[in-house]
Amino acid sequence: MTNKTKAIVPFSTDQEQSSLRLDLFTWTEVEEYLKDCKGVILPIGSTEQHGPTGAIGTDALTAESVALEVSKRSGVIVAPTQPYGMAEHHLGFPGTMSLKPSTLLNLIHDLLVSLAMHGFERIFIVNGHGGNIATIKSAFAQAYRSVSTMNLPLANSFRCKLVNWFMVPEVFHEAKSRYGDNEGQHATPSEIALTLYLEPMLLKKQVALPKPAPAGPIYDYKDFRRRYPDGRMGSDPFLASANDGKMFLDKAASALTRDLTNFIKEP
Amino acid sequence: MTNKTKAIVPFSTDQEQSSLRLDLFTWTEVEEYLKDCKGVILPIGSTEQHGPTGAIGTDALTAESVALEVSKRSGVIVAPTQPYGMAEHHLGFPGTMSLKPSTLLNLIHDLLVSLAMHGFERIFIVNGHGGNIATIKSAFAQAYRSVSTMNLPLANSFRCKLVNWFMVPEVFHEAKSRYGDNEGQHATPSEIALTLYLEPMLLKKQVALPKPAPAGPIYDYKDFRRRYPDGRMGSDPFLASANDGKMFLDKAASALTRDLTNFIKEP
Amino acid sequence: MTNKTKAIVPFSTDQEQSSLRLDLFTWTEVEEYLKDCKGVILPIGSTEQHGPTGAIGTDALTAESVALEVSKRSGVIVAPTQPYGMAEHHLGFPGTMSLKPSTLLNLIHDLLVSLAMHGFERIFIVNGHGGNIATIKSAFAQAYRSVSTMNLPLANSFRCKLVNWFMVPEVFHEAKSRYGDNEGQHATPSEIALTLYLEPMLLKKQVALPKPAPAGPIYDYKDFRRRYPDGRMGSDPFLASANDGKMFLDKAASALTRDLTNFIKEP
Amino acid sequence: MTNKTKAIVPFSTDQEQSSLRLDLFTWTEVEEYLKDCKGVILPIGSTEQHGPTGAIGTDALTAESVALEVSKRSGVIVAPTQPYGMAEHHLGFPGTMSLKPSTLLNLIHDLLVSLAMHGFERIFIVNGHGGNIATIKSAFAQAYRSVSTMNLPLANSFRCKLVNWFMVPEVFHEAKSRYGDNEGQHATPSEIALTLYLEPMLLKKQVALPKPAPAGPIYDYKDFRRRYPDGRMGSDPFLASANDGKMFLDKAASALTRDLTNFIKEP
Amino acid sequence: MTNKTKAIVPFSTDQEQSSLRLDLFTWTEVEEYLKDCKGVILPIGSTEQHGPTGAIGTDALTAESVALEVSKRSGVIVAPTQPYGMAEHHLGFPGTMSLKPSTLLNLIHDLLVSLAMHGFERIFIVNGHGGNIATIKSAFAQAYRSVSTMNLPLANSFRCKLVNWFMVPEVFHEAKSRYGDNEGQHATPSEIALTLYLEPMLLKKQVALPKPAPAGPIYDYKDFRRRYPDGRMGSDPFLASANDGKMFLDKAASALTRDLTNFIKEP
Amino acid sequence: MTNKTKAIVPFSTDQEQSSLRLDLFTWTEVEEYLKDCKGVILPIGSTEQHGPTGAIGTDALTAESVALEVSKRSGVIVAPTQPYGMAEHHLGFPGTMSLKPSTLLNLIHDLLVSLAMHGFERIFIVNGHGGNIATIKSAFAQAYRSVSTMNLPLANSFRCKLVNWFMVPEVFHEAKSRYGDNEGQHATPSEIALTLYLEPMLLKKQVALPKPAPAGPIYDYKDFRRRYPDGRMGSDPFLASANDGKMFLDKAASALTRDLTNFIKEP
Repeated sequence: MTNKTKAIVPFSTDQEQSSLRLDLFTWTEVEEYLKDCKGVILPIGSTEQHGPTGAIGTDALTAESVALEVSKRSGVIVAPTQPYGMAEHHLGFPGTMSLKPSTLLNLIHDLLVSLAMHGFERIFIVNGHGGNIATIKSAFAQAYRSVSTMNLPLANSFRCKLVNWFMVPEVFHEAKSRYGDNEGQHATPSEIALTLYLEPMLLKKQVALPKPAPAGPIYDYKDFRRRYPDGRMGSDPFLASANDGKMFLDKAASALTRDLTNFIKEP
Repeated sequence: MTNKTKAIVPFSTDQEQSSLRLDLFTWTEVEEYLKDCKGVILPIGSTEQHGPTGAIGTDALTAESVALEVSKRSGVIVAPTQPYGMAEHHLGFPGTMSLKPSTLLNLIHDLLVSLAMHGFERIFIVNGHGGNIATIKSAFAQAYRSVSTMNLPLANSFRCKLVNWFMVPEVFHEAKSRYGDNEGQHATPSEIALTLYLEPMLLKKQVALPKPAPAGPIYDYKDFRRRYPDGRMGSDPFLASANDGKMFLDKAASALTRDLTNFIKEP
Repeated sequence: MTNKTKAIVPFSTDQEQSSLRLDLFTWTEVEEYLKDCKGVILPIGSTEQHGPTGAIGTDALTAESVALEVSKRSGVIVAPTQPYGMAEHHLGFPGTMSLKPSTLLNLIHDLLVSLAMHGFERIFIVNGHGGNIATIKSAFAQAYRSVSTMNLPLANSFRCKLVNWFMVPEVFHEAKSRYGDNEGQHATPSEIALTLYLEPMLLKKQVALPKPAPAGPIYDYKDFRRRYPDGRMGSDPFLASANDGKMFLDKAASALTRDLTNFIKEP
Repeated sequence: MTNKTKAIVPFSTDQEQSSLRLDLFTWTEVEEYLKDCKGVILPIGSTEQHGPTGAIGTDALTAESVALEVSKRSGVIVAPTQPYGMAEHHLGFPGTMSLKPSTLLNLIHDLLVSLAMHGFERIFIVNGHGGNIATIKSAFAQAYRSVSTMNLPLANSFRCKLVNWFMVPEVFHEAKSRYGDNEGQHATPSEIALTLYLEPMLLKKQVALPKPAPAGPIYDYKDFRRRYPDGRMGSDPFLASANDGKMFLDKAASALTRDLTNFIKEP
Repeated sequence: MTNKTKAIVPFSTDQEQSSLRLDLFTWTEVEEYLKDCKGVILPIGSTEQHGPTGAIGTDALTAESVALEVSKRSGVIVAPTQPYGMAEHHLGFPGTMSLKPSTLLNLIHDLLVSLAMHGFERIFIVNGHGGNIATIKSAFAQAYRSVSTMNLPLANSFRCKLVNWFMVPEVFHEAKSRYGDNEGQHATPSEIALTLYLEPMLLKKQVALPKPAPAGPIYDYKDFRRRYPDGRMGSDPFLASANDGKMFLDKAASALTRDLTNFIKEP
Repeated sequence: MTNKTKAIVPFSTDQEQSSLRLDLFTWTEVEEYLKDCKGVILPIGSTEQHGPTGAIGTDALTAESVALEVSKRSGVIVAPTQPYGMAEHHLGFPGTMSLKPSTLLNLIHDLLVSLAMHGFERIFIVNGHGGNIATIKSAFAQAYRSVSTMNLPLANSFRCKLVNWFMVPEVFHEAKSRYGDNEGQHATPSEIALTLYLEPMLLKKQVALPKPAPAGPIYDYKDFRRRYPDGRMGSDPFLASANDGKMFLDKAASALTRDLTNFIKEP
């Protein structure tokens, strides 16, 4: 295997400086791509409440934007964003759409196995939602088992890696230093900032909010709503700005491009 | 239940003439929306080969565009597009990502049950991929069972409807009359046309292709590749134009807006 | 593979003009059969209400009779009839017994994989119930995946085909021309006619019925019963006669024998 | 609950002395039936090799005949025979069709829950195949859980009972006394005898066979075929006669009618 | 395969006369062990009520003690005891913890497949709970299928055997002769005796109890509690003594050591 | 709800200073216990390789000892230790027994639901294996959904908490300070130390080992073995001593007793 990042000659001048969106590739272009690079980025978000002023699609919007930017910088192809994840604890708020853990486990498993069948050897999941982490990790183990059972030629070099853009140290520390305790744990100013940068119409929804319920544990969805009545966990999203969002995007993309490059080069 | 279409006062002037994207709503806006309308649109596509010149994301791109347009015209909210579907038979072509039928069944089930928990009573699935049809229908039955077991208050009025934009009579007949036998059954000029309208960069990929393998039956993915070596089933996507795509979008959106309105009004 | 229909020398003179019932074969006879023909017929019905005068077993009785007749005419072996299918929407009527879609999916999957393990390459499912169609199609995709994973020698030539006897054009058009709108969509005169031919004791149950609820959409079982209070969807089964049933059986068997023969010969 | 056996006034004189076949009932007749009796018989067989001279459908044919006879004698309704069961260990012989244990578990579960939804309180499974026993028992526990979760009104009186006609003491001892060690454990003269009585054309397949492999343990299907090369486990089915079959049917039906009556009367 | 029992040179003098506990082995010791012996003992119990004086862990405690003793006498390694089993019918009593049949089926399946991957060819399950029997047997069939699909080198010699220590004839007859009808069917004096021998502190819980409800059928957990109000089924556990327990342990271990030895030697 | 820790009057003087083992309770004692305390401890380990000198049962032995000690100090009942967990990546080493993530998810789900049915409101899982974390968290969400669907009276106060004894800050920092980089990530001196304290016979297995492979990422089990040939990830377990183990047990139990007490008191 001779993985080279940025070595792929793009298929049109349009794409040269752009994200490499798998959904805009043809299968013949993917075949060509695989001769040079075995890596792929798979973004996943969630469709769930983000407080009274945050967009329900926050986790998918942000994960997608980070993934596209990492693709642009690394030359690694990016698959479509899976917009639905595991959001059981948010089901007490209208608009939340959640996959049961067992469903998400199978979904991620099937996508990973599909990619393995084509010879993708390094799957880099860019995740936008904390609630997905556990199940995605479980899915890795289940996919390794299947790939091994199927006796695919790549079984020995098939590897999956999960990164959460909001937990990238450069992002996390910046958010803490900028917002302090008001960063909170859900509907955080950092993620809302990124959505403001991506979707300016969301700015109109920004209003000052009362002091949020303090961040704490997460149990079932009824308890969640009782504990965090407006959906926020200790956060003040009114602090967010589109400029901050642009900065977080850059920091996340920069760090993850480095991680992805290393992941693909890993012997 | 007093469902009214178009009665929703949009939440900002921006949105007034726009699609109502659930992912850009806050949960409080969804709560408000549900007082006026119990309907929701859920687009689903697939990520699979579409011949040597068609985009792998064709089915998601097209379903999403139709769904957004129907939302704009009907004032009914539209959920994020599920980009992965059941594409087992296309797995012989690089880039195809497929959910097993059992996985897709659970995915659709979970999304439907989530919506039911919030009081959405009319779920209108706009589908872009023939391979999803069977499993989505199966999921309806499974979701009805769950909603009934959960004793949700809306159990008696919870209804799901599947529409396939490419099978809308107005679209189907126009495609047949315009392209004749060259419409084929996969990577059809009609769906490719719509992608050209949506993503102009795809125009560069359009090249004249040799005569395709004739459309025929679909079995497993190895047989599919042997039978349809370049992925097309009897189609000549080179006939497609962005203008045609715009027209198909209008025809599909027009017919489906009517269907959705009736569906929501249904006693 | 050299499939020959009608080439099988039957194992006894009794069977020569008879259906070839797998359940009356010995395994050594099946082994012998497979040297000449790789095809098998698998009938499936449903156990569900068919209006106040129709038999609950209508879909299994009719599918079985058509399958047996096709076997007789084609010389292709016929497996036992699966009498239970997906009938969730009929559960509001006593006597209906339904498999959840996920269960039916696994059931069909397992039967197909069993047949593949013995070298049956052409599985011809004769179905008597519309509610089974979606799930059977889903099961095909799931079975192809398993057969491929198992590395069975026949993987490249294993093919499944679903036919619905009541949707055979010759049957469908004759029913429409004979009964017009009174054919309806459930507990139709055409299917009831076939049961009258098969089980003369059912004639006593035939009585004139009030005008049925018009055919319409199908949602969950409570809605179904409210919408179609006596179980009929726009049909007048009192129009049915045993003679008609005999005729439908002949038309269905004739068309399907031709289809099956072509399916087995398919290269 | 006041269950009365034999109290049901049959719906036609034809049926008066006959088995009460659910598949020949209408739903209105089932509704009527349930006013008098909450019991139902559910036969299950298997489709699997029965040695070089025995019918593949032996277990379904025999279970069905016993169930019909018990219905006739007890006045309890009998559901269609499930012809496919768990026969994994017989898959080394052509013609065997097997459900995985997990599939059979769900199948039986779904049928039991369907019956519970209509108010059937006593489900009497008449089984013809040893390999089904374990999974059917597992399904009982799973169904009790579901019925309890669904809060059906009958939850407290819903009961399932499994009987195996070939293990009825009167049958078992007669077979042992008549055939001694030649009864064996699979493709036994007693079960073959019953098929000869039911399907006289099977008589032609009866030939003297070499001494069988002795009965022993059952592991996977390859081991099974190596251990029992012609499929028999210590049995000499050539000893079977149609007359014996008639006698076994009578003994089984007599004992099971008594058991069923007690089961239904049980407070 | 040249299995030799008792041929294993233990890894330390401590272990020489001891049970060979897998959990105290290192992986290198297991590797060494497998050169001499392909057998392994897997104990399974249940965590469920055992009447007002019996320990909830009775089934795990007893199965473990028998398994350890068999290991000591046979030199066959013993895996950790699975303490949770299928105890749905006991859920009406506080403290019972039950796996659904489908869960237990998968659990046993996974453990068997793990052992097969290492080359263990003879799995000897020592069970302490009647409610587990059906599901364990189902799991055997499911595991054989998986091992066969995985094409493991040992597929042809992989065999699983279930033994229930309380049904060993030497134990069963002794219990009947010692306690007569007071042995009953749940919370029996024989199993309680063994727990008294193993955990002397349990002696304090022994008190004379009123006449128990007579043993009878088992349906769902609410019916169970109504039928057997204190959890006992016809048993008088006050008859139990630690001395009896010691004797039962010896009888069970002696018989099962013989059975295990034969099982491993089996060609 | 008035949870009181340490308020339970033990059932015998023996138990007064002891762990409260659920498996040694009777159901009547559990009923009594629940009047005072709604908490329960559930230990879970894994059965997997721990390097060439570490016990395969390390994770279960350690989790169990910590759980028992926490029970002793808090007066909260402790359920039996689940000895098998998710250890897919260790399957390359003989003796490892692993549950697939989907199986472990269902297992934990079923145990949690059982406890909820009895009114346990605070489930405190003491885990000994990093590989279990993701799946246990997934299981919490799945269990909350089920408990909510079942309409159990406690649904609003049912809460699950996962703690990993080796990640308790007091333990983790002490290990780092004592062993530095030699703590590593698998078969660590801290966990081995605890096993030496618990099972002195393990001391004989302690030998000096060559420098381990450095800790790094975890992918599938074949990659794991290639990357970490003797099973260790950067650790030097030869540094471990029984005395250290005793100290770690005390630190873990002390911190977790405090956490559990707070968890139960939580309003």
